[in-house]
Amino acid sequence: MPPIVSIVGRSGTGKTTLLEKVIGELTRRGYRVGTVKHDVHGFETDRPGKDSWRHRKAGAATVVLSSPDKFAVIKETSHEWTAERLISSFVSDLDVVVTEGYKKGPFPKIEVLREAVSRESVCATDEKLLALASDFKLKLKKPVYDLEDFIGISDLIVNKVIKPHKDATVSLVVDGKVVTLKPFIEDLLREGVAGMIKSLKGCSKAKEIEIRVRKK
Amino acid sequence: MPPIVSIVGRSGTGKTTLLEKVIGELTRRGYRVGTVKHDVHGFETDRPGKDSWRHRKAGAATVVLSSPDKFAVIKETSHEWTAERLISSFVSDLDVVVTEGYKKGPFPKIEVLREAVSRESVCATDEKLLALASDFKLKLKKPVYDLEDFIGISDLIVNKVIKPHKDATVSLVVDGKVVTLKPFIEDLLREGVAGMIKSLKGCSKAKEIEIRVRKK
Repeated sequence: MPPIVSIVGRSGTGKTTLLEKVIGELTRRGYRVGTVKHDVHGFETDRPGKDSWRHRKAGAATVVLSSPDKFAVIKETSHEWTAERLISSFVSDLDVVVTEGYKKGPFPKIEVLREAVSRESVCATDEKLLALASDFKLKLKKPVYDLEDFIGISDLIVNKVIKPHKDATVSLVVDGKVVTLKPFIEDLLREGVAGMIKSLKGCSKAKEIEIRVRKK
Repeated sequence: MPPIVSIVGRSGTGKTTLLEKVIGELTRRGYRVGTVKHDVHGFETDRPGKDSWRHRKAGAATVVLSSPDKFAVIKETSHEWTAERLISSFVSDLDVVVTEGYKKGPFPKIEVLREAVSRESVCATDEKLLALASDFKLKLKKPVYDLEDFIGISDLIVNKVIKPHKDATVSLVVDGKVVTLKPFIEDLLREGVAGMIKSLKGCSKAKEIEIRVRKK
């Protein structure tokens, strides 16, 4: 999994605007950025690519739209997928993931405060809180950035999230849950899986291996 | 992987309309249907859920939008993912997948013909061609359905695609390519992977296992 940081805060504080600036800045610095937005209210799916959305209206539970340089998926699920699972499945090839939301999630986070919405932090006691971004002065034990200071916030993400990150070489999802692996187990699984498939045709120099198993 | 059937044919013949009716009919019969549309010209991504699409415009290479009962993903790729890979990753939990397009793909297919577009089949010699659906009379060695006869076409899909399908319990993707497995190797991988993880916490009764490995 890539390094992950969450931009959190109440509705209307300007999370998306800050995120846009941070994505732009990190991209300019050469990082490939993925995002996950947590939308607890659900979202409309009346696009993209009209035709495939007709599939969905007709009853399809999953719709995939594939083109030469990108694809889109909309998938109904019986229960909400965790951010870890979504990232493991879709964003594990990128350099950094920034989430919008997941204030109760397990990732390092930056909280956005806007005076017109509320002067109260919702994450002040969260040990995962790295810093705040605010449009007014406030005193807290954590660093406070000006809400406009996306350069400083990007520096923080690079120095506190991206650079210290040691990427795992194995990710394991069991019955929809991401399983955390100790280094020894990670080595064992990596070498075990690579060993099992290496004599299959075309697999001797495998770099990226994905196996899905369904037990009866 | 679930059973897969492709609806193919020239542009403007009415593939999407037929697909809608077939999706509706299969859904009414209790099957959970996924679709993959092959759009060689690319597609617009100016939705859904406004905010997350702002992430993409700002430079994010992958955007995920998560809500309690569904998620959406748009992902840029350096080369086109095959239908098999997309289905293995996103649609392997459903009962049947109907693709729109992939006329050169490896799946059983039904070709749509419309007199106003062309009287010539593009797949007549394809041994994977199951049948044609046409709005005019034509003589071919394959069965020809009336283009309006979505009930008959759904029967065909149930009898020739869904019922004979024996689902594999293992799918393997190596460096982005789906690897076909012989039954013995499938058994070996399934039991090997399940054996390796069964003593991990919470994994003793694992039913669905996904492992991603990156070799250095």
